[in-house]
Amino acid sequence: MQTKQEVNIGLLGLGVVGSCVAHVLLEKKDSLAEQSGGPLILRKVAEKRSVELEPGLLTQNAEEILTDPQIDIVIEVIGGEHPATEYIRQAITNGKHVVTANKEVIAKHGYELFSLAKEHNVELRYEASVGSGIPLISSFQQGLAANDISAIYAILNGTTNYILTRMAQEKLDFPVALKQAQELGYAESDPSNDIEGIDTVYKLAILANLAFHIKLDPQEIYCEGISHLAAQDFHYAEEFGYVIKLLAIAKRYGNTIEARVHPVFLPKDSQLAKVDGVYNAIQAEGDLAGKLLFYGEGAGGMRASSAIVADVLTIVRNNRLGITATPETGINQELIVKPMADVETRYYFRLDVADRPGVLAQISKVLGDNSISISSVIQKESDRAAQAAEIVIMTHPARENAVQKAVEQLKLVTVVNEVSSFIRVEE
Amino acid sequence: MQTKQEVNIGLLGLGVVGSCVAHVLLEKKDSLAEQSGGPLILRKVAEKRSVELEPGLLTQNAEEILTDPQIDIVIEVIGGEHPATEYIRQAITNGKHVVTANKEVIAKHGYELFSLAKEHNVELRYEASVGSGIPLISSFQQGLAANDISAIYAILNGTTNYILTRMAQEKLDFPVALKQAQELGYAESDPSNDIEGIDTVYKLAILANLAFHIKLDPQEIYCEGISHLAAQDFHYAEEFGYVIKLLAIAKRYGNTIEARVHPVFLPKDSQLAKVDGVYNAIQAEGDLAGKLLFYGEGAGGMRASSAIVADVLTIVRNNRLGITATPETGINQELIVKPMADVETRYYFRLDVADRPGVLAQISKVLGDNSISISSVIQKESDRAAQAAEIVIMTHPARENAVQKAVEQLKLVTVVNEVSSFIRVEE
Repeated sequence: MQTKQEVNIGLLGLGVVGSCVAHVLLEKKDSLAEQSGGPLILRKVAEKRSVELEPGLLTQNAEEILTDPQIDIVIEVIGGEHPATEYIRQAITNGKHVVTANKEVIAKHGYELFSLAKEHNVELRYEASVGSGIPLISSFQQGLAANDISAIYAILNGTTNYILTRMAQEKLDFPVALKQAQELGYAESDPSNDIEGIDTVYKLAILANLAFHIKLDPQEIYCEGISHLAAQDFHYAEEFGYVIKLLAIAKRYGNTIEARVHPVFLPKDSQLAKVDGVYNAIQAEGDLAGKLLFYGEGAGGMRASSAIVADVLTIVRNNRLGITATPETGINQELIVKPMADVETRYYFRLDVADRPGVLAQISKVLGDNSISISSVIQKESDRAAQAAEIVIMTHPARENAVQKAVEQLKLVTVVNEVSSFIRVEE
Repeated sequence: MQTKQEVNIGLLGLGVVGSCVAHVLLEKKDSLAEQSGGPLILRKVAEKRSVELEPGLLTQNAEEILTDPQIDIVIEVIGGEHPATEYIRQAITNGKHVVTANKEVIAKHGYELFSLAKEHNVELRYEASVGSGIPLISSFQQGLAANDISAIYAILNGTTNYILTRMAQEKLDFPVALKQAQELGYAESDPSNDIEGIDTVYKLAILANLAFHIKLDPQEIYCEGISHLAAQDFHYAEEFGYVIKLLAIAKRYGNTIEARVHPVFLPKDSQLAKVDGVYNAIQAEGDLAGKLLFYGEGAGGMRASSAIVADVLTIVRNNRLGITATPETGINQELIVKPMADVETRYYFRLDVADRPGVLAQISKVLGDNSISISSVIQKESDRAAQAAEIVIMTHPARENAVQKAVEQLKLVTVVNEVSSFIRVEE
């Protein structure tokens, strides 16, 4: 590739992101050529669906790209674990640089693929996999390289953040807000990867691995989605001065890492609380740089194209300089992942209880027996006919295992009809 | 440098930033060595003042560093234009890579120094020059490389932002807030570079040059500081739903660039309005990435060290790969800087007038004659004895030259005692 004037690109996938990437490569070809020292040519596009494209450009067979000796860089925007992982592996093995937006592949197989890329002396770049067009990966790799990162708090999924914003603003129940998001194209017809937090877990794994120089398996990250949240929880959050966000949290204490994805109560004046709609925001805390925040739209074809084409430019520039910046695979930290049971936060509970004297005393006793101390309580009559009431409790910091045990015990208390909600609080 | 195991660093300046850089290089030497593939050794420090340092490390003569064939990388943290420019030039000419935090040198002499570095095949990095530890330079160079940037709005000076925050929160007059900032070490004893907007102009020039691929001279940037602001302006800003910030603005319209630094009224709900104290924030708008915001502390020795040591790591890594990423000097845009007279914004005026009938009519006439249309007015009796009143006017968008003309005419109107304040409004 160094000696050739032109760089040939193969594109795997022509969905929303792929179409935008193709569009950018064609529309901006003059300025991209100028910036990279020669033409970037979109040589072939693999897409199973039938699409309209210049004759000769389209193939239904990815192999035609992966084995084409002319192709220098493969852009993978198919998404999902399979066959994307295999395609990336094959591209690398065939000596092609790879640019991917695939958080699942990088989160699950990153380390193996980085090593493979190193072995084959090619680059594997993935700026678009987290935060889309927000320059995060390069910031962690380069600008923050001298820092010991102590914490990451992030809103990484535009779909859930849109739904949560709607639920908060209009006090909608989850199914209604989801339906609206789907109608507007902000949620997929099968939204489970987004709403159950899985997408966020992949992204957090990628960020944590970069920030802490570890090899964290996505399965080691505690994961809880937003589908169990109810309109009342947003009412009470507001009453207590909080908003509800799906947060990705990774913290380091000495040799221990805490990594979790779940809905949280965030103080309404905090910066992340103000991130609404489809926006993403990533707060990182470094010993030298202090607290940094990166904010931008985390989804959409154009946003992802920004990162993907930037990755292509970086590869081409490096190659014009005669080098290949193969991925860093140094894992210099032997860190232990803290079990979720040992995590300590404050908690919010919402309980459906019988409306009769002594109920609060019984609940308080269960919490006290588990060393959970109450910071505030709201009790409201919810249904006079059924003699039911709602009790909402905010606790002081408590350990997750104590809280889980208390929840189980509360379910057995006769006057407790239901533990309706249970949300962690971050300050 | 490629063939040696160790990298030798010379440090010019041991003030606040220099001391932190030295501290980081010593304290983190193991992890820095691991990350960069070999030891980074602080070989010599040049400082005129007498400081305590390991014997043999200190010199009062910068020449000893600039001409030492052992030194691979020179870190310049003296600040100011001279002799820093000459030192950097000499370091480059002697084949040394340079890392600098010096916004004045880069803003005024960047292009010449980048060309010189290219010629001598060395790197010249300056991540710390804007936004300190916020990874901005690398984000524009790499992550946003595929974007056409249309606008930058930024708070780039921690000192002025601290003063403005205090003035807003406590309704202090400027001299009082400045004095407090000086007592707390947030403002220097000679604060003019900060409070007159000069520091911000340098930083905006650097960002605009990166974002638009132009060669903008700091002198082409309109510059107005904050020292003329009064406590009343903050009162009225609040009344109208705004806050006052010193904003750096660079916008592109086709082949025209608008670049200016001055205090503005910002809607209180905008993200930049919420940036308080010594924090910096940079909002960039790209055609692909959309609206991005970078936020962090823009001052202090540790913050700058984060960027400086990151630059050192990048140089060392590149060199281990056998390359030198000399600066990009491609200026691919022939853009015209719009004269300030042609800029169009909304305006806020505060006038000290005689308290008698028909005053507002006379003022309105002057504005109307200059095609300036009023959006809202507040008139308040300010001093009954002197029969004086205060009139505050917010206009619809108007052209700067029309507004300047109107201000001159207003000064000649008998009932107008003084045009006390005149602040542009950004929406």
